[in-house]
Amino acid sequence: MPEMHSPPFSDVALIGAGLIGGSWALAIRVAYPQVRIRVFDQNAQHRLDAIARGIADVAYETLEDAVREADLVILAVPVGALSPTFLKLRPLLGPQTVVTDVGSTKQGVIEAARVNLGEAYSRFVPGHPISGAEKSGPTAARGDLFQGKRTVLTPVKETNHEALSKVSLLWEKCGAEVHILNAALHDEVFAAVSHLPHLLSYALVGELATRANADLFFSYAAGGFRDFTRIAGSHPTMWRDISLANSAALLKELDAYSLKLQELRVALAKQDGAALLDMFERAQKARTDWANRLN
Amino acid sequence: MPEMHSPPFSDVALIGAGLIGGSWALAIRVAYPQVRIRVFDQNAQHRLDAIARGIADVAYETLEDAVREADLVILAVPVGALSPTFLKLRPLLGPQTVVTDVGSTKQGVIEAARVNLGEAYSRFVPGHPISGAEKSGPTAARGDLFQGKRTVLTPVKETNHEALSKVSLLWEKCGAEVHILNAALHDEVFAAVSHLPHLLSYALVGELATRANADLFFSYAAGGFRDFTRIAGSHPTMWRDISLANSAALLKELDAYSLKLQELRVALAKQDGAALLDMFERAQKARTDWANRLN
Repeated sequence: MPEMHSPPFSDVALIGAGLIGGSWALAIRVAYPQVRIRVFDQNAQHRLDAIARGIADVAYETLEDAVREADLVILAVPVGALSPTFLKLRPLLGPQTVVTDVGSTKQGVIEAARVNLGEAYSRFVPGHPISGAEKSGPTAARGDLFQGKRTVLTPVKETNHEALSKVSLLWEKCGAEVHILNAALHDEVFAAVSHLPHLLSYALVGELATRANADLFFSYAAGGFRDFTRIAGSHPTMWRDISLANSAALLKELDAYSLKLQELRVALAKQDGAALLDMFERAQKARTDWANRLN
Repeated sequence: MPEMHSPPFSDVALIGAGLIGGSWALAIRVAYPQVRIRVFDQNAQHRLDAIARGIADVAYETLEDAVREADLVILAVPVGALSPTFLKLRPLLGPQTVVTDVGSTKQGVIEAARVNLGEAYSRFVPGHPISGAEKSGPTAARGDLFQGKRTVLTPVKETNHEALSKVSLLWEKCGAEVHILNAALHDEVFAAVSHLPHLLSYALVGELATRANADLFFSYAAGGFRDFTRIAGSHPTMWRDISLANSAALLKELDAYSLKLQELRVALAKQDGAALLDMFERAQKARTDWANRLN
């Protein structure tokens, strides 16, 4: 059945030629060389880089031109820019055009799509590819970024089944392992394992940086500090957007964490070595088990 | 002047053949092949490994045998074991024997030495080599572990100048950059850049691990989580000891950090994107500046 091998989409509009969008486009090219990819990015240098890297066949200066003939629109812009982008997109979409995103939070994005996409809302497939890369921009894009990694899709009851299965197939053909999760659970899980750690890492470095003798402190920081604070080097506007978009789940996680710190504080103040050891041992075991499962 | 090249010590007793002690011994061998090194370790396997790795010339089953002829005793045992070790050491030390340690906290160690070492207290040189290694045991020891790294010495007013300069010279010949710091400042700095991050990392993993659906959460953890939690894989008893020994400074740091988290909580709850961005930007800049200075 040759149609099994035909691409789920033939004309892709990539909105935002950053690391994630650029990498997905490169992966699509490998899986389906016949698919046409048009990119729109507000940043002129990104447009040039996207063409130079082979991310897209053509780069446009307007959203309109990029999406005009698309049967798939990939929104790879910061989470905070999604809501106005949905609104601009609404009158430009064809009656069959599927829309998907790559944002790190999902409930807020889904709500923005519901309000702003009109009848195209049912053809919106909310997505979140999990990749640990810290770099950004089209020059950092790599076609194998999602190889063997998970991509989470969080459809809602209105989501068109055909749109969902086509986006799912596209991700699988790009090497990703597709998981379907409820959007609220998605946001809770990523608040705990990704958004909170970013907040905690920013807080540590931010607190130190405000001190008069910050340089002295930083000068003695070593390997443990380097690893713990690596994510404090992440893109500030991107993480502002994620924090705001997922603030409800993040506040819950922050409160649970603060309680745990309070427990630790009590144990420290009482010099309760047994309580500290118990906690450190459980954590070390869980961390080691997790790392072993990865390998 | 050939005496400039003679070793500051000729007979070293290494108490504890772990990563740090073992690595220092290997570095001493390279700098001064003529120095005799005797090791005592309670762990029979460590004694065998220490000989096999060339860490020591001879391994003893008792502290007495190892220190009998030593002109330098290196205490490379966990911080929590230092106090009783000082006490046992006291009657065994020759009138010129210098004692030094490699513990991660200094004020508590100095106080234990003052109480337990008797008149040898003036020949105790408190030390802390900064190395980011996470492995442990003699098989992980490397002669270049301290190459280009800092070793902090925290002498007190009673510390004998000759003892200090000999230990300092030994560290320098082993490739370390020796820094002299006040013990209280040392403990404050390391509470902030090392001990607190360990506590925070243990707390994150420990909190997640207590959940009924912990496996689901861990299954979506990616690169940011891996880096942030790497230090939660550290040795639990070692970090219990460090936390207890440096609890005063650590509590201060924990409180300053909790205040910062509280600020973040307020900003999140108010959806105050400007406050979040300001904090993330300062932290990102400080982290990037720090990383650039390292390179």
